[in-house]
Amino acid sequence: MTQTHSPQQRVDAWLGSFSAALATGDVAAAADLFAPESYWRDLVSFTWNITTVEGRAGVADLLTHTLEGTRPSGFATTAEATESDGVTEAWITFETAAGRGTGHLRLTEEGAWTLLTTLRELKGHEEPQGERRPQGVAHTLTKGRKSWREEREEEAAALGKDRPPYVLVIGGGQGGIALGARLRQLGVPSLVVDRHDRPGDQWRKRYKSLCLHDPVWYDHLPYLPFPRNWPVFSPKDKIADWLEMYTRVMEVPFWSRTAVRSATWKDGRWSVTVDRDGESVELTPTQLVFATGMSGKPNLPSLPGADGFRGEQHHSSQHPGPEAYAGKRAVVIGSNNSAFDICGALWEHDADVTMVQRSSTHIVKSASLMDIGLGDLYSERAVANGVTTDKADMVFASLPYRIMHKFQIPLYQQMAERDADFYARLEKAGFEHDWGADGSGLFMKYLRRGSGYYIDVGAADLVADGRVKLVHGQADHLTEDAVVLDDGTELPADLVVYATGYGSMNGWVADIVDQETADRVGKVWGLGSDTPKDPGPWEGEQRNMWKPTRVQNLWFHGGNLHQSRHYSLYLALQLKARYEGLDTPVYRLAEVHHTR
Amino acid sequence: MTQTHSPQQRVDAWLGSFSAALATGDVAAAADLFAPESYWRDLVSFTWNITTVEGRAGVADLLTHTLEGTRPSGFATTAEATESDGVTEAWITFETAAGRGTGHLRLTEEGAWTLLTTLRELKGHEEPQGERRPQGVAHTLTKGRKSWREEREEEAAALGKDRPPYVLVIGGGQGGIALGARLRQLGVPSLVVDRHDRPGDQWRKRYKSLCLHDPVWYDHLPYLPFPRNWPVFSPKDKIADWLEMYTRVMEVPFWSRTAVRSATWKDGRWSVTVDRDGESVELTPTQLVFATGMSGKPNLPSLPGADGFRGEQHHSSQHPGPEAYAGKRAVVIGSNNSAFDICGALWEHDADVTMVQRSSTHIVKSASLMDIGLGDLYSERAVANGVTTDKADMVFASLPYRIMHKFQIPLYQQMAERDADFYARLEKAGFEHDWGADGSGLFMKYLRRGSGYYIDVGAADLVADGRVKLVHGQADHLTEDAVVLDDGTELPADLVVYATGYGSMNGWVADIVDQETADRVGKVWGLGSDTPKDPGPWEGEQRNMWKPTRVQNLWFHGGNLHQSRHYSLYLALQLKARYEGLDTPVYRLAEVHHTR
Repeated sequence: MTQTHSPQQRVDAWLGSFSAALATGDVAAAADLFAPESYWRDLVSFTWNITTVEGRAGVADLLTHTLEGTRPSGFATTAEATESDGVTEAWITFETAAGRGTGHLRLTEEGAWTLLTTLRELKGHEEPQGERRPQGVAHTLTKGRKSWREEREEEAAALGKDRPPYVLVIGGGQGGIALGARLRQLGVPSLVVDRHDRPGDQWRKRYKSLCLHDPVWYDHLPYLPFPRNWPVFSPKDKIADWLEMYTRVMEVPFWSRTAVRSATWKDGRWSVTVDRDGESVELTPTQLVFATGMSGKPNLPSLPGADGFRGEQHHSSQHPGPEAYAGKRAVVIGSNNSAFDICGALWEHDADVTMVQRSSTHIVKSASLMDIGLGDLYSERAVANGVTTDKADMVFASLPYRIMHKFQIPLYQQMAERDADFYARLEKAGFEHDWGADGSGLFMKYLRRGSGYYIDVGAADLVADGRVKLVHGQADHLTEDAVVLDDGTELPADLVVYATGYGSMNGWVADIVDQETADRVGKVWGLGSDTPKDPGPWEGEQRNMWKPTRVQNLWFHGGNLHQSRHYSLYLALQLKARYEGLDTPVYRLAEVHHTR
Repeated sequence: MTQTHSPQQRVDAWLGSFSAALATGDVAAAADLFAPESYWRDLVSFTWNITTVEGRAGVADLLTHTLEGTRPSGFATTAEATESDGVTEAWITFETAAGRGTGHLRLTEEGAWTLLTTLRELKGHEEPQGERRPQGVAHTLTKGRKSWREEREEEAAALGKDRPPYVLVIGGGQGGIALGARLRQLGVPSLVVDRHDRPGDQWRKRYKSLCLHDPVWYDHLPYLPFPRNWPVFSPKDKIADWLEMYTRVMEVPFWSRTAVRSATWKDGRWSVTVDRDGESVELTPTQLVFATGMSGKPNLPSLPGADGFRGEQHHSSQHPGPEAYAGKRAVVIGSNNSAFDICGALWEHDADVTMVQRSSTHIVKSASLMDIGLGDLYSERAVANGVTTDKADMVFASLPYRIMHKFQIPLYQQMAERDADFYARLEKAGFEHDWGADGSGLFMKYLRRGSGYYIDVGAADLVADGRVKLVHGQADHLTEDAVVLDDGTELPADLVVYATGYGSMNGWVADIVDQETADRVGKVWGLGSDTPKDPGPWEGEQRNMWKPTRVQNLWFHGGNLHQSRHYSLYLALQLKARYEGLDTPVYRLAEVHHTR
């Protein structure tokens, strides 16, 4: 494995040695093929978990526990290996006893630096696509043959009555819908329930100026990509229409106007009571997935005096849009995405707007984020370079969280330089700005805490030039007609918007199951980075997302459209394996260090 | 141009000579580059028409009339040329004064055998896709800025009132919807009107066992291909859902529950009266497109005694499905696709079914047609070989209609051989079977007359083994409870289904405009092949489809999903050019030889 060989030869040699070590069960030899600083990230293929191990000891531990059951084989590259800056990269394929996988390898002179292994399909349970797609009709006439529509109608009528769903997905946003689509393709009897009138209402019912802040290339759903004319930034009603239509054409089993009242685990199943359009229905799924939104459970501060406030007050998630507030005095508490969006829309509709900044916020201009932060993977440029959505997702997945910030920091340094004037103006206006705890910017903040930033789509200028007033402090209490800050500042208000963020998703478990179960499952989201709102110890992966939790048969799914798309595959495969009764020994089930 | 050169060199040499001749206006030299037997098919790029010229004289005539205005340039190949059986083939690109084109060339030792030239986009009017896709939101806040939804709502409210559509498309099936989507992308103010409750009802409201007989690879709509899990043969309700979804997400301006009462041409516009959900609305489009279905205007025979018949009788297009007819005696008049589908479904639901064959019918088994007839272009195999839908469409378009039957005949000979037992059984049962006037089979029958065949999806076996009874003859009259044939045979009946086909689309013009205009525009569909139901003289292209007609600003669009997809582009570009006021001199406007 000297550098005189080609990248492909180096990879072939490494894969050959790795395969040989695995085939003979020589864990030590396999571990020695990794660099002293190294990361093996596995998505379900070896571990029936989503986990990253570090260093040779980590590799040895993983293999010691998983090798016998996994029986990996057939490691090969799927494209010519490449090299740059002393790092050799290759896309790989392999098999296990249960399934087929793909992955990615980075080699340095010291051995494997990063290895990604992912499960793509289960043997004998491949999805009915392409050559395997359904015929749609049997070309032999038989009495009593049913039409597609009759079959769908009978299925819908039986679901939740004669035929319990194996998986119940609570929440029908992009996450629940994407997972529902995958489970349908995998033939797992499932049901997605959602409290709104129809799919897409999670977006449709938000304030009218809302658009996705992530670009179209990042937002595709599984199976059915957006067409080439789709806007870069989907307006909320347009993405809502897409989700509604997607649910229909992908035949996702979906109950609208259905709220989950309670769930309890008994006798190897969940017993879930839902209110379906006024009717109480008992469901008995084996698996329960919370897809209720990592930004779904509002943090609503209870301020003294709130009851006596004579104006309107609501959480940002309940904000109806600006139309009713022309000429009114609006105080928006918070300075992240929702706060800026709402301040901007209120200002556009002639409200008198004050933003209350409680702590520093990270802002990046959308164009800079698109170009520098996402452009290589998710952009028209990436598409032109052959970086498909799936490939981009895999590149992203191949970067271990432990070192991801190192890749991010220089990008944000570039943004700071490009938009130096902008940040100078913000600073001059008194806005408290940060770049994240270690300068790693927006995406790491998103992964660590899911908050603390604004992707600027225009509203920052309003703050910078004073069209939206800026004050600092914590809201202390309300009077009949004002918000009073902890320094005594009184902000006269007809409207108070609490853009105060969201709590951990296990709060939903407390509401629907019970507090004990919520505590047992622990905090959801975050990496354990020991940065604000993401306490350590280091977890290696996002807490409780898309993988087994400490509560049996209880799962979490969600995140942005990218995550809903990509990780829904691994969650769906885990659920499918259990539905089919496959052996799914979980390696290194994460411990719970925090309850919220 | 000797055979010692590579295919690419031969093509380069030919394109070089052709370009030089065109650049210098040397029509004779350009024509001499074609073989004595040769065909140049142009879709809008040179001719603002859809037309095929033949031989050197035809090429010279086309260029004499079009060269000065077209100013073609930049001919080049887009992929390495190939050769087989003495024919060199190449994919080409070129420009004209107005637009950009692609095409296909076949060379023999004698020169160009076939040339296809197609207009793909108009310069300065490129579609907003990929790099040109809309942003979806402006990242500068301004007072009065409207959301996407507000813009759509205002547009919908103004359409047909403050803002007349430039194009009115009558009929919202797959044809009207595909055209509407293209016109929207091209920024041509348009409106699709349809009499049903919602998009897709043209399929949804048909008999329940209906499935597409064409396979999924052949059926994609523009912009938004079916996902990889879509069934090979779409059940009617599933394709209906897709069309409804497509209309919405592609933002096709669409009025449901709208029937067109009348249209007259005056003062450079059409004056069209429509009934929109009970309200009479006047529309004043400049262009009027009939997308009412090449199988849309029923042929309903008026049989003596029909008024006195005490059972049920209806045209196949009105057939509600078999459920109500268990135990009833059904007589189905006709022996083509609809007749077989309906006979099959009635038999499956325990009706006593008799098919009345009036003339011979061509039958091919679906699996054989898919494999032998379409497999190279539209199949999973084709996809795996890199034959995209667009490429397949272009290959198909590159075969001149004059010689297409020669390519088809051997395919149907293969099918006859493969399914010899099947045809022997049919014959033994007394079924009158044919392979088309010249043995060229189903697709030529479709192009020539749009009728005379059945793609067997199982019902032929019912006739072959007598489960569906077969009689021969013409229906002469009805009694109170029977159909009486011209030979006196009496067929007791509780239900009579007239599977008697459809008339020429200009019949719609007679109904909506007037008979004089319908006669002036002439017969729609067919090639002038001088075969049954397609009288000569030879037209070279399908009569009146997707191209200028003898009636100003009146157009026809339709056909199967393949044609709706592919030809909607050329029709949309012709309409766009007129909307933008470009010069669109039509070369060789077709003469009218038949009025129905």
